[in-house]
Amino acid sequence: MAGEAGTGDCLAWAARDASGTLLPYRFTRRALRGDDVSLRITHCGVCYADVLWTRNKFGDSKYPLVPGHEIVGVVTATGSGVKDLRAGDHVGVGTYVNSCRECVYCNEFSEVFCSKGAIRTFNSVDSDGTITKGGYSSYIVVHERYCYKIPDGYPLDRAAPLLCAGITVYSPMMRHKMNQPGKSLGVVGLGGLGHLAVKFGKAFGLQVTVFSTSESKKGEALDLLGADKFVISSDKQEMESLANSLDFIVDTASGHHPFDPYMSLLKVHGVLVLVGVPGEVRLSPLSLLSGAKTISGSATGGTKDTREMLNFCAANKVYPEIEVIKIQDINEALDRLVNKDVKYRFVIDIANSLN
Amino acid sequence: MAGEAGTGDCLAWAARDASGTLLPYRFTRRALRGDDVSLRITHCGVCYADVLWTRNKFGDSKYPLVPGHEIVGVVTATGSGVKDLRAGDHVGVGTYVNSCRECVYCNEFSEVFCSKGAIRTFNSVDSDGTITKGGYSSYIVVHERYCYKIPDGYPLDRAAPLLCAGITVYSPMMRHKMNQPGKSLGVVGLGGLGHLAVKFGKAFGLQVTVFSTSESKKGEALDLLGADKFVISSDKQEMESLANSLDFIVDTASGHHPFDPYMSLLKVHGVLVLVGVPGEVRLSPLSLLSGAKTISGSATGGTKDTREMLNFCAANKVYPEIEVIKIQDINEALDRLVNKDVKYRFVIDIANSLN
Repeated sequence: MAGEAGTGDCLAWAARDASGTLLPYRFTRRALRGDDVSLRITHCGVCYADVLWTRNKFGDSKYPLVPGHEIVGVVTATGSGVKDLRAGDHVGVGTYVNSCRECVYCNEFSEVFCSKGAIRTFNSVDSDGTITKGGYSSYIVVHERYCYKIPDGYPLDRAAPLLCAGITVYSPMMRHKMNQPGKSLGVVGLGGLGHLAVKFGKAFGLQVTVFSTSESKKGEALDLLGADKFVISSDKQEMESLANSLDFIVDTASGHHPFDPYMSLLKVHGVLVLVGVPGEVRLSPLSLLSGAKTISGSATGGTKDTREMLNFCAANKVYPEIEVIKIQDINEALDRLVNKDVKYRFVIDIANSLN
Repeated sequence: MAGEAGTGDCLAWAARDASGTLLPYRFTRRALRGDDVSLRITHCGVCYADVLWTRNKFGDSKYPLVPGHEIVGVVTATGSGVKDLRAGDHVGVGTYVNSCRECVYCNEFSEVFCSKGAIRTFNSVDSDGTITKGGYSSYIVVHERYCYKIPDGYPLDRAAPLLCAGITVYSPMMRHKMNQPGKSLGVVGLGGLGHLAVKFGKAFGLQVTVFSTSESKKGEALDLLGADKFVISSDKQEMESLANSLDFIVDTASGHHPFDPYMSLLKVHGVLVLVGVPGEVRLSPLSLLSGAKTISGSATGGTKDTREMLNFCAANKVYPEIEVIKIQDINEALDRLVNKDVKYRFVIDIANSLN
C-alpha cells in the first residue's frame, strides 16, 4: 500500500482485522501538495461509523484501518497555493477529504453528493490510489477545500463532534426550513446526533420534544439540553396525545424501531428525516398517504453547509456535550458506544495521549 | 338510516355485504339546501377504492354501500345561495363532499387535509349524520364548494377519471415542482393512475420513463400515451443503467413490490411519491440516506388544485383513456379491475344504463 512507504512519522491507532481491536500503528502521510494543508490533530470525535468500519460491518474494510472523521487540530504547514488558511489556524476535517470538484454537486459545494463519490476520510481509495486514513492519528494532510476554519474561541475538543454529528443534523434541518422559530421538532434517540438536534432546535427557536426508550434521560433532556418535552416512546397514551402535532422529526435511532407511531405525530406535509442507520425502514403506506407525509434521509453535508454550521454554533453558543478520553481508552469507548453508554460524544484527546 | 326515508327517487347500485356484489337499490338524497347543487349523474369512473370498500377491506363498510367518487353530470337545480353554478352546467364531484370549512387546511382550499377529516363521497358519516352515497346513482346533492365546473367542450365521460385518478397524480407533481419542462419522471405501474401520470408528465414537458412488470404494455405506453422510455422492472441491467437519472417517481403500484430498486434510480434529493396502496413500504435506510432521497405519499387533492387540474387538462388536451361500460356490467368490471384487465379506467355510462 502506498501509505506504508516513507518515514512512518504519523502515529496512529489502527484496527488490523474484523475484531476491530485498535492498536498503535505508524504510517506515512503524503507529502504536502500545493493546495494541501497539514494539521497537527488535537482531538478526534468517536462516531458510530468508527465501530462499523473497524469491525467490517459493511464488508469493505481495508486493514490496517485508521478510523476517525471528526477531526480538529492546528495548521502546521500549507502548500504554496493555499489562500485562506495559515499555520496556527484552528481547523476541522469531516467525513470526506476529496471529491471530483467538477460535477454539479461539487460546483455548488455539496461535495457530499459528488457524482463520482466523495472520498471518505478513512477506508476509501483516494484519487492517488492510496487508502485514506482517519483522525485517530497525530497529523493529517488534506486539500484545503475539505478543511474548515474553527471560529476563534470555540473550544477545539467541543468542535470535533460538529464535523460529523453536527452537520448530519444541521443539514436536513436547514434543507427543510426548520430554522424558523415556533415550528415543532421531534427528536428520536438522544445520543451523539440526537442531543445536537435538540441543541440546534433550541438555537433555532423551535418547540422540541425528545422521544426516548429510557426514562433515565429525562432530566438531562429537559435541564441540560433544554428540550421542552420528554416522551417515553412506548407510552401509547402520550404518543397518541401528540398526534398531528409535529412539523419535523429527526430520527437518530439506529436500532430496530417502528416508524408508523412517529409518522402519526407529524402534521400534514410533515417530514421525518432519518439520520441513523436502522436495519430496515418498514411502515404502512397509509402513514405516508394520509396527510401527504414524507420520510427522507440525510448524511452529513457539503463544505458550504459545514462552514455555515460551524459559524452558527460559535455565534449561538451551540456546544456538543462530550466525554474526553485518551487514545489508550478507545477500545473500551467503542464498546461503551455500542452499549449506548456515552453522554453524548466521546472525543479523543489526541494531543495529550497519542505520542 | 336517514337516507332511507323519503321518496326513494334516487336509483343506484349498492353492495349489501362484504361479497361486494352490486345490485339495484333505491334511496333518497337530502333536500336541496341553500348552498347545494343537485346534479343528474351522467358518468362515474370506477376506482380501486370502489373494490376496497364494497368488499369491506378496511373493515368499516356500512351497507347498503353505494360506491363511486369520480362523478360527472349536469346541474339540474341550485340552492338560493349558490353563485357560481347554474342549471345545465357540466360539473364533477370527487372523493369528498364535505369538510369543516374552518380549519387552516380548509381555509387554503386543501380540504382533503381538513383537521376534522374530509367527508368522503361514500361510506362516510356526513355532518347531518347520514351515510354518504356515491356516484353509482342517478343523482347527487352536494355543497357547491365540492362541485367543480367541467370546462366547456371537455367530454363528460373522459372527465370522470380526473376527479380521483387525475387529481391524485397531478397534486404531488405540482407540490414537488414537476411541472418544469426537462425534468425526468418515472411512472411505476400503468393503470388508471399511472397512465394519467404519463399524460401529465408529457403535458408538463418531462422525460417520462414507464416501469412495468409486463412487456405487453410497451407499445401503448410509447405510442398511445407518449412515454419516452419503457422499462421492464425485472430487467436488472436496464434498471442499473438508469441509476441516479430520475428527478421524481410516481409509484402507482398497489401490489407488493420492492422500493430499493426504484430509489436507486433517483438523483440526489430525488423523490418517490406513493399514490398506490401496497401492503407495506419496506426499504433499506441507505436508499434514503445516500443522496438525501425522499419517499412521500399523496392522496387526491384540495378543491383549488382540482379546479386548476381540470382547467389544465382542458387547455392541454389531457384526456384519460377509458372503457365505457353499463352499470349492469359493473360486477364484471370490478373483477377485471382486480385482475388489472382495464385500459385504463372504466367509466360507467350512468345516463344511458341506470334507469
